[in-house]
Amino acid sequence: MISIHHQPQPTDLGDVRVANRALVLRHVRQHAPCSRADIAAHTGLNKATVSSLVTELIERRLLRETGLTENRVGRPATMLVLDGEPYAALGLQIGVDELVVVAVDLGGSRLLTWRRAFAAPSASPGETIRALATLARRAIGRVTGQGRTVLGLTVGVPGLVDPAGAVPLATALGWQDVTLAAELRAALRDPGFTVGVDTDANLAVLAEHRHGAYAGTADLVHLTGGAAVGAGVVTGGRLLRGARGFAGEFGHVTLDPAGPACACGGRGCLSALIGLPAVVRRLLPDSEQDGPVTDFLPELDRIQALARQDDPGVRTGLAEVGRHLGHGVSLLANLLNPEAVVVGGHLAALGSWVLPAARAELAARTLAPQAGGCRLDASTLGSTATALGGATAALATVEAGRLPTR
Amino acid sequence: MISIHHQPQPTDLGDVRVANRALVLRHVRQHAPCSRADIAAHTGLNKATVSSLVTELIERRLLRETGLTENRVGRPATMLVLDGEPYAALGLQIGVDELVVVAVDLGGSRLLTWRRAFAAPSASPGETIRALATLARRAIGRVTGQGRTVLGLTVGVPGLVDPAGAVPLATALGWQDVTLAAELRAALRDPGFTVGVDTDANLAVLAEHRHGAYAGTADLVHLTGGAAVGAGVVTGGRLLRGARGFAGEFGHVTLDPAGPACACGGRGCLSALIGLPAVVRRLLPDSEQDGPVTDFLPELDRIQALARQDDPGVRTGLAEVGRHLGHGVSLLANLLNPEAVVVGGHLAALGSWVLPAARAELAARTLAPQAGGCRLDASTLGSTATALGGATAALATVEAGRLPTR
Repeated sequence: MISIHHQPQPTDLGDVRVANRALVLRHVRQHAPCSRADIAAHTGLNKATVSSLVTELIERRLLRETGLTENRVGRPATMLVLDGEPYAALGLQIGVDELVVVAVDLGGSRLLTWRRAFAAPSASPGETIRALATLARRAIGRVTGQGRTVLGLTVGVPGLVDPAGAVPLATALGWQDVTLAAELRAALRDPGFTVGVDTDANLAVLAEHRHGAYAGTADLVHLTGGAAVGAGVVTGGRLLRGARGFAGEFGHVTLDPAGPACACGGRGCLSALIGLPAVVRRLLPDSEQDGPVTDFLPELDRIQALARQDDPGVRTGLAEVGRHLGHGVSLLANLLNPEAVVVGGHLAALGSWVLPAARAELAARTLAPQAGGCRLDASTLGSTATALGGATAALATVEAGRLPTR
Repeated sequence: MISIHHQPQPTDLGDVRVANRALVLRHVRQHAPCSRADIAAHTGLNKATVSSLVTELIERRLLRETGLTENRVGRPATMLVLDGEPYAALGLQIGVDELVVVAVDLGGSRLLTWRRAFAAPSASPGETIRALATLARRAIGRVTGQGRTVLGLTVGVPGLVDPAGAVPLATALGWQDVTLAAELRAALRDPGFTVGVDTDANLAVLAEHRHGAYAGTADLVHLTGGAAVGAGVVTGGRLLRGARGFAGEFGHVTLDPAGPACACGGRGCLSALIGLPAVVRRLLPDSEQDGPVTDFLPELDRIQALARQDDPGVRTGLAEVGRHLGHGVSLLANLLNPEAVVVGGHLAALGSWVLPAARAELAARTLAPQAGGCRLDASTLGSTATALGGATAALATVEAGRLPTR
């Protein structure tokens, strides 16, 4: 019933053209193939404006004509689709035991997905940044070799990220006050495109909102798996960032004050109960016989295999992980009332065994009937949602109507 | 860095006029006295449009000319202010031991604030609705007797409210599935204005956002005091409602699994630790000698008096309340990163003794440096913030540019 509006801002004509260009691009992205007349009818822009913008966007190869025409009353229309063939955007992801890079074209189609084994928690920030830069350079080389221009690159970090792209704290990596964006930009020798940093959860929810099973859902949360559990929150169709960009820190909510110790110094935090290292430690007590685990994929495979064999200890342990997950999600459901909470990483990989218990706990602990309608599901985007979201985020300036620099 | 935009909607000319009317009203509300030329310059509307809208708004007595002119280059200008003299909006509040009604004019100035002792938790929903209707009728009689037209009325409830104005659950009142808006509308014999229902926390944060010490803050939370603790959340300048309008349920987050039993069936919920009945029970063990407390104001006075006398038991108890409050607020600070959390009701009344411990706990438990910048303060709006917010909400249709029905 209430709405609190932003103060409207006066605009100049350049801004208006940028905004209209964004309208046209968005319409084509969502409704392609479509004609100039369709765009005019749906955006409210007049036909001359649409025609001028489309000409410019075709000339810059952001749109192209398909040559298709559609049967309709009146003249046949030339249909438009996104082109973006000459452009690419990159996303990087710092996982618990790997680095990932994804490149997409303007339409969001993947051009490449590369993984490189790398145990960031046991490396120094400098080593991690060098490894990121190496991986990024290879991906940049590949897409530029294909004749594409890179529009931007965004890195996802499991921790706090400030608006300048620095990381004040990432307990899962052991980082404190790392000026990641600046150092990565320097390592890439100030490339002619934006190098951004965001939390892995923000980028993952952006990927969900664009490409996931709940794409377009106005009230949506992505909970990351991995070493730290973070929340990316979309509310009312917009990413919730908070006053200083630190929103979404959810991994250290205390669920069990008598629970296991956490890297943050607390006890029984959500991450200490359901983070990947915690799950491996709890379900595979022999896993640390030869020192700390740095490569989690084989351990995750073992847990899945044991669960498929109905190993009672593993099944019981996974149900317990599910109850903790459901408890955590109930806090989000009570406070944010999202339409869906989507879990990623190992929580998605173990979803078949974890989610039933989690859903029961969610329903029991949420005050609104039927958990306020909140669905709880595994992400369909696999374990590279953050990198995909990073590439998606890197398209933002073009999608906002700014033309790429030539 | 990311922004996720709403799909732009096509508009018709009637909608455009409504939207422009809202722009003009908002500009005058925020910048009065101002001239037609000021409005045109700041809203980007052309002068003829502004002139036509202002004429209509003066004719409907939503604006008036002050007759003042301002010295400036060129012709002296006639200055405009909000009129709204012939209009009133009402807000009602169901507190733990009283009902409150507030009426405001279009500019948000209070016309009346009336309280009536009423122990809703020990009354039936039907009795409470009859008492609300009686109080509302008296207030309506007063403002219509002054020649004003009532634009709308909104009731704040400590519980869940669905979009139809029904209350699926309000544990603090013992309510379940109460069709409040419909029943109140019937009790008022279908008045010619909107009868709305919202959560007390949503209305309180609306009042804070308009009239409080943090007015205009884009990322703001109000935590209600009283029997139940609820959160009203403004994020990115907009009220966070969630998918089904159930957002802000924060009173039953478990802070201490070994803590006292809660009306919701759980243990150690935030409400069971820092709600008004819990605080009275904890600090004044003799208060329930003659049966359950139904009138909390004298008990609150006693606690304040003992705290002022440095009573060690009461001081220790209030610091403990503060630590639980700070723990709860740290969850909000980590997840939402608001600029400020403002507490109302008894938490504000006891703020001098509760807030220092709460702020220390908040800083210790929030991962971002300096609690992510989150301030924690007592509301300056007194104990009628919800009713004031209800009246403010009832102005929404006019503020959105719809003309009042004559």
